[in-house]
Amino acid sequence: MSTFSSVDAFDAAIADMPAPDETAMASARNRQSQLTKPPGSLGRLEEIAIFMAGWQGHERPRLERGRAVVFAGNHGVTARGVSAFPPEVTHQMVANFEAGGAAINALCAAAGLDLQVLALELDRPTADFTSAPAMTESECLAALSSGAAMVEAGLDLLVPGEMGIGNTTAAAALCAKALGGGAGEWVGPGTGLDPAGVARKIGVIEAALVFHQVAPSTPFETLRRLGGREIAAMAGAIVRARQLRVPVLLDGFICCAAIAPIFAAEPAIVDHCLAGHCWAEPGHKRLLERFGLAPLLTLGMRLGEGSGAAVAAQIVRSALAAHNQMATFAEAGVAAGV
Amino acid sequence: MSTFSSVDAFDAAIADMPAPDETAMASARNRQSQLTKPPGSLGRLEEIAIFMAGWQGHERPRLERGRAVVFAGNHGVTARGVSAFPPEVTHQMVANFEAGGAAINALCAAAGLDLQVLALELDRPTADFTSAPAMTESECLAALSSGAAMVEAGLDLLVPGEMGIGNTTAAAALCAKALGGGAGEWVGPGTGLDPAGVARKIGVIEAALVFHQVAPSTPFETLRRLGGREIAAMAGAIVRARQLRVPVLLDGFICCAAIAPIFAAEPAIVDHCLAGHCWAEPGHKRLLERFGLAPLLTLGMRLGEGSGAAVAAQIVRSALAAHNQMATFAEAGVAAGV
Repeated sequence: MSTFSSVDAFDAAIADMPAPDETAMASARNRQSQLTKPPGSLGRLEEIAIFMAGWQGHERPRLERGRAVVFAGNHGVTARGVSAFPPEVTHQMVANFEAGGAAINALCAAAGLDLQVLALELDRPTADFTSAPAMTESECLAALSSGAAMVEAGLDLLVPGEMGIGNTTAAAALCAKALGGGAGEWVGPGTGLDPAGVARKIGVIEAALVFHQVAPSTPFETLRRLGGREIAAMAGAIVRARQLRVPVLLDGFICCAAIAPIFAAEPAIVDHCLAGHCWAEPGHKRLLERFGLAPLLTLGMRLGEGSGAAVAAQIVRSALAAHNQMATFAEAGVAAGV
Repeated sequence: MSTFSSVDAFDAAIADMPAPDETAMASARNRQSQLTKPPGSLGRLEEIAIFMAGWQGHERPRLERGRAVVFAGNHGVTARGVSAFPPEVTHQMVANFEAGGAAINALCAAAGLDLQVLALELDRPTADFTSAPAMTESECLAALSSGAAMVEAGLDLLVPGEMGIGNTTAAAALCAKALGGGAGEWVGPGTGLDPAGVARKIGVIEAALVFHQVAPSTPFETLRRLGGREIAAMAGAIVRARQLRVPVLLDGFICCAAIAPIFAAEPAIVDHCLAGHCWAEPGHKRLLERFGLAPLLTLGMRLGEGSGAAVAAQIVRSALAAHNQMATFAEAGVAAGV
């Protein structure tokens, strides 16, 4: 049975999002104050441990069952020349993920994350959203539910990733529709466009915004009209994670754009999310600022696949190692400062 | 036999520093261009892999034998009230390192780094450098050599760390003497001083700068007069690593300040170094800018012990995992873009 069997079910999920466990957070905060270090000297590692405690509901959160999922989809808008790569590459890269040869495979192995790959009807690209909604209602619900199905209770961390030639165009369109600002504010060179290509991409998004101008600006309608299957699947996975209180480590621009339409309606959607990193593209920086999330990493990465978040997962692991394994002042017989 | 048996031996080492292996770097760069990702899309992970290739002298560098060393020392200047913690804490924390209860223990375990601890004559603090050189010539040479002895050929990465109540004062004094700028430019709250404590710390450093004003400003003399045993040991370890082409991941302000006197004479000292992170203190940011090194992490950490660099070591590990394990376009049958 699909999690989001109707638009109402999806709307209900985002209207009723659980909060973190304040008791566990207070216990974790108290523990941090007793560990053998000056208060605050581990900086964001301390905040991460407390955040994880809140969502996992334990004073000592863990990262044993961390999962990355790469969702893949194809986009009709690629016919408009918005990518430096042909759409066949989506298929080829899924084969590469399955054979273990992509960046995300290596990075998940290094970070101790389980990696799953879900290809969403690659032979049926979404419609070109400059002249039609990208998906029908049932297609979008199916994609949302496919994403949700990749998340289960008891996961310690979710890293949503994606692959889809053309999907930076969809992501920019989603941001412009959901959060305002011209297309140009949300568009960058993606994974290799020259300046003429960037101008073409902006024109395509502007055309899409005009075509969908009178559409209802609900999260579902925006995702359905301007998103893509892998984008809706990420949104579904992130909403499902929230229902199950599974913390999420967001990846790049496309991953974040997937929840921009939800954020516009319910800003609390980002409460169970950490920003893994910030892309080299200005649109992602702007989006994270809107979300109020400071990225853990800024390493000039812009690959997608969940790659930046997979690297950032190691910071979460470090944070929890310090939180769980350090001795207290009392245990170690260390004077606690003045 | 000690590595730096005389001041001349130390001076000779910093006057004759080896360069990276350009052939290995070119091979690594070529490999990066063939991996299944848009060129440059892994950002600094690509640069790190090429850097590591250059210093290890292999197209496919590794991180199997990574070592963190925590050097500990006590400082006579603590008598001047420059720290929120009593000097006994240095001793207590060394016991904590040895028992496995400190942050660096947990972070090295998470990062797969070997951890060694070297306490340098904790019962013999350095002299109060406001009225005497911190160390005699032979004391400083012994500390430099102790540091060098912790580094051997074949290490894949060195993370120098430190513990020493009062050593942010020594670090700020070293920077002011070596690189100029008033004491106030290099001083922050350290690990917990209030504003009155910060003002006292600035006054102490200014007094030291006046006392040592006419001293020769060679790297050795600056280290000897204003440093400390653990600081000289870090400098010795970093210079020895360079002789052996072992790449170094720098930690916080004190670790970086240890090589500031060398940098002032030979800026190439930082060529085999990556900056692991940037402290929450402005002096560290300023110092990294002078070094021309962009930190891998900016997480508000300011603990020392090698803790920030130990977290950053996981980024190096991720970089090498992607570099070594990813498939090439040819291997994976993926189209390489236009």
